[in-house]
Amino acid sequence: MGSGGNHDSMRAVDIIRKKRDAGELSREEIDFIVRGATRDTIPDYQLAAWLMAVLWRGMSAAELAALADAMLHSGEVLELSGLPGPKVDKHSTGGVGDKTSLVVAPVVAAEGVRVPMISGRGLGHTGGTLDKLESIPGFNVNLSLREFRGVLERCGCALIGPTAEISPADKKFYALRDVTATIESPYLICASIMSKKLAEGIDALVLDVKTGSGAFMKEQAEAEHLARLMVETGVRMGKKVVALITDMDQPLGRAVGNALEVEECIDILNAKGPADVRALCLELSAWMFVLGERTETVAEGKELAAEVIASGRARDTLREVIRLQGGDPRIVGEPSLLPRARHEASVTAKRSGYVTSIHCEQVGIASVILGSGREKKEDAVDPAVGITLEKKVGDAVKAGETLCAVHYNLDSRLGEAMTLLKNSFEIGPAAPPASPLVRKVIGAAEAHTRQ
Amino acid sequence: MGSGGNHDSMRAVDIIRKKRDAGELSREEIDFIVRGATRDTIPDYQLAAWLMAVLWRGMSAAELAALADAMLHSGEVLELSGLPGPKVDKHSTGGVGDKTSLVVAPVVAAEGVRVPMISGRGLGHTGGTLDKLESIPGFNVNLSLREFRGVLERCGCALIGPTAEISPADKKFYALRDVTATIESPYLICASIMSKKLAEGIDALVLDVKTGSGAFMKEQAEAEHLARLMVETGVRMGKKVVALITDMDQPLGRAVGNALEVEECIDILNAKGPADVRALCLELSAWMFVLGERTETVAEGKELAAEVIASGRARDTLREVIRLQGGDPRIVGEPSLLPRARHEASVTAKRSGYVTSIHCEQVGIASVILGSGREKKEDAVDPAVGITLEKKVGDAVKAGETLCAVHYNLDSRLGEAMTLLKNSFEIGPAAPPASPLVRKVIGAAEAHTRQ
Repeated sequence: MGSGGNHDSMRAVDIIRKKRDAGELSREEIDFIVRGATRDTIPDYQLAAWLMAVLWRGMSAAELAALADAMLHSGEVLELSGLPGPKVDKHSTGGVGDKTSLVVAPVVAAEGVRVPMISGRGLGHTGGTLDKLESIPGFNVNLSLREFRGVLERCGCALIGPTAEISPADKKFYALRDVTATIESPYLICASIMSKKLAEGIDALVLDVKTGSGAFMKEQAEAEHLARLMVETGVRMGKKVVALITDMDQPLGRAVGNALEVEECIDILNAKGPADVRALCLELSAWMFVLGERTETVAEGKELAAEVIASGRARDTLREVIRLQGGDPRIVGEPSLLPRARHEASVTAKRSGYVTSIHCEQVGIASVILGSGREKKEDAVDPAVGITLEKKVGDAVKAGETLCAVHYNLDSRLGEAMTLLKNSFEIGPAAPPASPLVRKVIGAAEAHTRQ
Repeated sequence: MGSGGNHDSMRAVDIIRKKRDAGELSREEIDFIVRGATRDTIPDYQLAAWLMAVLWRGMSAAELAALADAMLHSGEVLELSGLPGPKVDKHSTGGVGDKTSLVVAPVVAAEGVRVPMISGRGLGHTGGTLDKLESIPGFNVNLSLREFRGVLERCGCALIGPTAEISPADKKFYALRDVTATIESPYLICASIMSKKLAEGIDALVLDVKTGSGAFMKEQAEAEHLARLMVETGVRMGKKVVALITDMDQPLGRAVGNALEVEECIDILNAKGPADVRALCLELSAWMFVLGERTETVAEGKELAAEVIASGRARDTLREVIRLQGGDPRIVGEPSLLPRARHEASVTAKRSGYVTSIHCEQVGIASVILGSGREKKEDAVDPAVGITLEKKVGDAVKAGETLCAVHYNLDSRLGEAMTLLKNSFEIGPAAPPASPLVRKVIGAAEAHTRQ
């Protein structure tokens, strides 16, 4: 109409139209949308149309920072300035066998850099830190923010799930995105992650952005785009942020499944375990030390992390955080106290040669089918089941040798998982060239400059 | 997840994702969405996301025909094959002073081509046929489909508003589009128009697609795109369709406002009135004669239309349809029986020269402000108010001469309308070159071939 109406009040339809036409939304317009989502004053159908328009048109750096900030402040933000020392967290975009949190948190915390970690559950074919923690008998991930702070104060790290107080706008948006095919927008992913992570009251954040056949972002270019968005957004929100683009073309380490992965983490903290998991944990810890101003360089950070592991202090910190959060600390010394699957089956090689690739997403799906994840949100997770890889990419294998062991409880789940796993390994005449675990670091220059 | 779930049932989220990723939806998928909208089994937020994805990605000709067809069959479709003769309608995309329906329907009906016309109300700055009809004392646009058919049978044309039975899917989509900034999609506009028009049980349809400063589609390329979509969709649905791209850079004729426009239509049916309205009415009628197989060529059709007007038979048909629909038929002979505004004001030229342009949308908005349209859906319309243009583009004007007269009832509305109108006329030293009223005809070749 262009006349007569009330021009003072903002209208959701105008903000949707502006974004639809590739306009840049103001901070006030973004605040209006986020407030409307949080307070239910904007109907879901308008939010859904807006989310699709954002997926389509993207956002400028300023819009994205405004969105993440508005979502962050839609809920509670931990105030940790009373606790001495830097607070640094790590976030992974998700993968298969991706278990570094349980190593990195105690390693970094043992050196006085506090790690207030709010994690998620498994999503799709990927595992989740909370599901892994809950495989430890008694471990409580549902602390109040007050209890969370108490654990953090006493042992330097604390590991919980998202509370109702943290970024309610993200909860609203996420539920809508899930049913409107707007999950995949890197802008919405970025705002979701940053709004939740910065609610932890951290000074700095190390991002592990996965790419490859087992990641959500199969293409490295997509992963780098998301990484740059998150680094830029974090910097605009006044935080130090670095993103590592890391390989998820095969499962990380050998264990896939909740208790199996906890056991592998204990191996790492005992200075054993698979080389790739150890290398990535050292790398991530080192960046947390650098951003937390505990070491000057990444090289020094890696040395320090190796030393904290070798001395047993990281293992002691893990034992302590388990104890403080109600779990059975004896599992650290006796991993056999973790839940174990009743049955085991083997997938064997049909011919001799070298493993040339492992279809990582299929391995993740096989593990979910066994019960380590959820096919529907309301499904219960079986902490014991999973897969242990005997062979990884580049390994020589003889016909008949075991490629992986399948740990299962329900016979009915075995067939489908075995079929997937049999089709997941490719064997060829020669080992493929080794590919680096860390493909790229984004935001490092700024992070170093800022020290 | 890719496993385990139920793959038999369709899910709205998958259809949204497919369209988001520029996929082509199957007829079954489109039927699923339209059925979900009609029966309220798909939530509004999913429909909203889908509508935005359609606006973004567009639709193939096959998808669009499937959508229009599914929407058409979401409600009642008139069965007129029992009535002898062809049934042809005309639809305009809307403009200012765009009053041809009240001329064309009786002209064409007087020659045995039946015109079952379901029209709309004013939208934004444009007028609506229903509002014009209701300025005739007693005229009832709310006939049941049974009564509608009865009027059509007796006098060859009938003019009503959309009933609840016609395309309920369109009603659902339209309400959502209005608040989610998805009105403007040519694909959704096409499906909406075609689903409602073909519910009239017609064999053929002449489309008047307006372009220019007073149309919804300011750019001719946009208008042509929509026209091609509608022609292609109509043909795929088994109908004969032609679209005329016509000028809406200035109001059509001299009258803008409901009763004022009815009076201008009566002038035309008395072989008087503005040349542009008459010319467009002859052109549209001629195409209806051609598609209705009453004449072989458009030229013959125009001659026939002129003759029907000159003979007074079209005027008699208008009188008859008014009588059958409860209106006062005396207004045809005595237009002074139509509602008249109490006051009149004049907008005068500030300098001498030639009218070089009239900002058509502003004239429409001025008329709405006076009360001829609605600023909010629930507003009542004042049938009497409006604007009569004394000068049109190309006319010579002397300083102080009247450019237009303003017919008003409420003093409070006058100031804003006058300001808009004063700024709507541009006067320059020379008349601009005359521009054709019909800029292009789309679908003519197919229409002729099919005869």
